[in-house]
Amino acid sequence: MRINRNYLNLEDSYLFSSIAKKVRDYKEENPEKRIISLGIGDVTRPLVPAVIEALSRAVLEMRDKKTFRGYSEEQGYGFLRQAVCNYFKKKGVVLSDQEIFISDGAKSDLGNILDIFGTDNTVLIPDPVYPVYVDTNIMSGRKIIFMRGTADNNFLPMPDNNVEADIIYLCSPNNPTGAVYSKDELECWVRYALEREAVILFDSAYESFIQDKNLPTSIYQIERSKECAIEFCSLSKTAGFTGTRCGYTVIPKELIRDDTPLNKLWLRRQTTKFNGVSYIIQRGAEAVFSDIGLSQAKENIAYYMKNAQIISDTLRSLGIWFTGGKNAPYIWLKCPNNMSSWEFFDFLLKEAGVVGTPGAGFGNNGREFFRFTAFGDSEDVQSAMRRLLKINL
Amino acid sequence: MRINRNYLNLEDSYLFSSIAKKVRDYKEENPEKRIISLGIGDVTRPLVPAVIEALSRAVLEMRDKKTFRGYSEEQGYGFLRQAVCNYFKKKGVVLSDQEIFISDGAKSDLGNILDIFGTDNTVLIPDPVYPVYVDTNIMSGRKIIFMRGTADNNFLPMPDNNVEADIIYLCSPNNPTGAVYSKDELECWVRYALEREAVILFDSAYESFIQDKNLPTSIYQIERSKECAIEFCSLSKTAGFTGTRCGYTVIPKELIRDDTPLNKLWLRRQTTKFNGVSYIIQRGAEAVFSDIGLSQAKENIAYYMKNAQIISDTLRSLGIWFTGGKNAPYIWLKCPNNMSSWEFFDFLLKEAGVVGTPGAGFGNNGREFFRFTAFGDSEDVQSAMRRLLKINL
Repeated sequence: MRINRNYLNLEDSYLFSSIAKKVRDYKEENPEKRIISLGIGDVTRPLVPAVIEALSRAVLEMRDKKTFRGYSEEQGYGFLRQAVCNYFKKKGVVLSDQEIFISDGAKSDLGNILDIFGTDNTVLIPDPVYPVYVDTNIMSGRKIIFMRGTADNNFLPMPDNNVEADIIYLCSPNNPTGAVYSKDELECWVRYALEREAVILFDSAYESFIQDKNLPTSIYQIERSKECAIEFCSLSKTAGFTGTRCGYTVIPKELIRDDTPLNKLWLRRQTTKFNGVSYIIQRGAEAVFSDIGLSQAKENIAYYMKNAQIISDTLRSLGIWFTGGKNAPYIWLKCPNNMSSWEFFDFLLKEAGVVGTPGAGFGNNGREFFRFTAFGDSEDVQSAMRRLLKINL
Repeated sequence: MRINRNYLNLEDSYLFSSIAKKVRDYKEENPEKRIISLGIGDVTRPLVPAVIEALSRAVLEMRDKKTFRGYSEEQGYGFLRQAVCNYFKKKGVVLSDQEIFISDGAKSDLGNILDIFGTDNTVLIPDPVYPVYVDTNIMSGRKIIFMRGTADNNFLPMPDNNVEADIIYLCSPNNPTGAVYSKDELECWVRYALEREAVILFDSAYESFIQDKNLPTSIYQIERSKECAIEFCSLSKTAGFTGTRCGYTVIPKELIRDDTPLNKLWLRRQTTKFNGVSYIIQRGAEAVFSDIGLSQAKENIAYYMKNAQIISDTLRSLGIWFTGGKNAPYIWLKCPNNMSSWEFFDFLLKEAGVVGTPGAGFGNNGREFFRFTAFGDSEDVQSAMRRLLKINL
């Protein structure tokens, strides 16, 4: 038996284990100091009451023969797919429930979607970005071209007509930079994709953090995007589902390549290699999209965005360049005094007892940048910022 | 963008849609007749009280900031991996929790595991069998060799030293035939795999239905199997989790190919393309493995096995050849009077108003056979059998 040798081309990621080790060492040397982490990409607010109620109700249904649920459709229950359709409708996007696929999260779908594409396609990936796009394509041996995100383009790389690509990853709002594409910018990407019969994989996991009404929260707000884009979204950050697990993927019927609707290919993939999300969790997810659920989830998002505001205000007053934090839970800053991202990590830990994430972990173009997240406790964020103001930056 | 053209080689499965259409047509013509289905592969007993309690408790933990859980380890919480280890210990199998991977079900893992194997491996698959093994390998373009399950070998094909294969699927107890390999037989398979450095993918989804203490419930009860086998199991049938979704996969550290531990490759696959199972569901799964959970689950299994007994007794009194039903929830019978499996389906529906699954749906060698399942309501099973006794078989 021969292994998939593409796996041998993967680089081991030491990002989070290196961070953990440095923090551990520091704690041993400074047992009296309290470390504050602004590095976590995980939510801290609990599930909202509407979701808890729906989950509890669904659990009790499972104890009675009459209301018990066995296998569901692999693509998700109709009630949840319809709820997602209604959510899109509020954005001005009309979808049928046959175009929605419920899954255990965007990470699974972003990895598994590659099953339906030939391995001979060329992939275009922004740098810096969520590392999973790169690794999943290395695993299947595809050629990867990187597009540079820099301070000059506000970390929003635009299409280059001299570069040919078949599969294009866009993450907006971006993880880690918090940068968000405008409608005009996404129009350029849709045009670029249509001209080449390429497919855009649009990761909108952070769409619910967009505050500016002029910014698109779905690629389908762009004309003709249904002919060239798949959208991936998740309840992880929208409603604190990082440990509850539910997301959704949209493949419009209009999206056809090699005379084959990609919707049909993905349906075949999912019915063959997936058995659907837990009924209980799907009821919880449905509750997120109810009026009361959305309004409760919005309160949590407002809580996090207040943290982002506090961080942004502090960086501004310190004269540190940054992007994000306005329509995203991420603040992406230029490391001061020409420090590299790991140098700044060490400096910040030593001088302020504050932990963030070195930009190098998200690609070569992140090596002079640093990520703070807004997902922490509000008081922790405030004391972290007071510490930043005190040190020599 | 070019699609994965291997998908075009998949045959559309019309099995369950054809059955549904025939039943619909029959109902329209015979509105007064009540149809009884012995065709469903889904459980009908609700979740047991120990699981309901654990799920309810976990839901409430998610509402409080202090007990809320976000991202977990992709391979599952330690508490659940340890519970699975303890379950194996009772079978005399010693595993470390690093060898256990928790997932949303065996179907997902059986499909996704192929990611870590080269596409140039030859695959050996029993016929008849669960169709997912075949389709997932067609999707990745692997060469498939079938091994014949027939009445002569009791639907338990044995290794043929003239056949070379790299990946071997074994399903014991088998779906659809209910046949179970003995220890001696599995020893032959382990020897065959070790001699070729092949890997056995052992699907033990129905292990909890094995009543005969001499039959192996895990491949790891066979010596040196840890050097050549991956085991997939699920709580779907063990504890009625078909709609709740949780399973586990075991990759022993001793399993090394191309100088690479497969455990490490799978960990890399899962951390890159999966984000773990819902915390709530993992707590429910943990409860299955508690003493009270196991004993409650056993009662449901006894209920189903009583159905199997009733079906077996009836077939025996009718002089119809069958296998399974003793250590599995499936009864696999030879269609009487030289009927094909679809002819028998039509005959049974028309004469008795009873629905089963034509063996043709599970492979060429199933074309003269038929599957009954024991998952129905006990009273339904009894009236179905009374009907069978009345018609001319």
